[in-house]
Amino acid sequence: MTEFEHKHARPEHPIMDVIAERWSPYNYDPERSVERHKLLSCLEAARWAASSYNEQPWRFIVATKDSPEQFERGLGCLLEANQEWARHAPVLILTAYASKFSRNDKDNRVALHDLGLAVGNLSIEATRQGLHVHQMAGVNLSRVRAVYGIPEDHEPATAIAIGYARAQATSDELAARDSSQRQRNPLSQWVFGDKWGTTSSLL
Amino acid sequence: MTEFEHKHARPEHPIMDVIAERWSPYNYDPERSVERHKLLSCLEAARWAASSYNEQPWRFIVATKDSPEQFERGLGCLLEANQEWARHAPVLILTAYASKFSRNDKDNRVALHDLGLAVGNLSIEATRQGLHVHQMAGVNLSRVRAVYGIPEDHEPATAIAIGYARAQATSDELAARDSSQRQRNPLSQWVFGDKWGTTSSLL
Repeated sequence: MTEFEHKHARPEHPIMDVIAERWSPYNYDPERSVERHKLLSCLEAARWAASSYNEQPWRFIVATKDSPEQFERGLGCLLEANQEWARHAPVLILTAYASKFSRNDKDNRVALHDLGLAVGNLSIEATRQGLHVHQMAGVNLSRVRAVYGIPEDHEPATAIAIGYARAQATSDELAARDSSQRQRNPLSQWVFGDKWGTTSSLL
Repeated sequence: MTEFEHKHARPEHPIMDVIAERWSPYNYDPERSVERHKLLSCLEAARWAASSYNEQPWRFIVATKDSPEQFERGLGCLLEANQEWARHAPVLILTAYASKFSRNDKDNRVALHDLGLAVGNLSIEATRQGLHVHQMAGVNLSRVRAVYGIPEDHEPATAIAIGYARAQATSDELAARDSSQRQRNPLSQWVFGDKWGTTSSLL
């Protein structure tokens, strides 16, 4: 992983390597497919996420380049700016979620949140497997619904590119994106204590 | 961790131990507080999550029993069924998210999702630290907003109990909850390929 060391987090408190080393590349190695057993481990990791009432509202549509037609269909659901770089990744996942609880048909207010928990698990497992994940909100949602026939009680949400990052960029512009360091707001800006906006005394 | 081995996932494909061993206890050891450095590592892990346009929409309000008044204020924001067991945990976090992008003031459709990514990181790091996390959607949202003064452009979302699980239960009913095995739907039910509802050929 040394060629991507500039992408490692610079944490102020110790965190797991797989969390520190996760980043979202724009440049994927188009020659390198994702091993089936690795992809299955990523999906299995998502499966064991927590969810409200154990609803497991997450749904994934997987498209790999093993089926070029399948891949093009998935790629066509991304916004154009994302298609440009994501076309070089070997695997795309379109995500969706069940918007109601199956037990009582009531709205699940946290379904989108719980999808995030599942995708977080997938990302961590992918990092452990030496893979790289880049999530996208830039998805043509109505197109996803139409192309795949997503029913009314489910909502398309995001897309995920999975593959192996490569240092060699597809274009100068994409090279610049992958060369920048990762930046995060300090804990003091968003970890509060007695009142909103008042930094926690823990820090 | 052997006393909680029945809580380990039984994955069908290999996944990281911290993902397999994470579970959501109802019984916390009330005598055991969470070390400050561990809590800081959990928050730091959340900090390095991915988010759309790197917005980092997550906000945490932390209440620990080091300040009983602070803890009671946080506890009072949970629905009663959650207060019953969560009162024995040493740390509570109330979560919220910025509902608009700071760069252009437009709605952030995936803010709640990205909060989930951050909380997922926190849960994984907590598991690594030997801690246990139990997330709750059962929160009195209007109370959280009023008590902490959450501004209109942010939304309260969930609560998180953090501490050390204990095998000895607070009540028979809570004992039963922690003795059950964790169940998950098979991948074939929610990993699709060519069409919605058609299992991916990967599986």
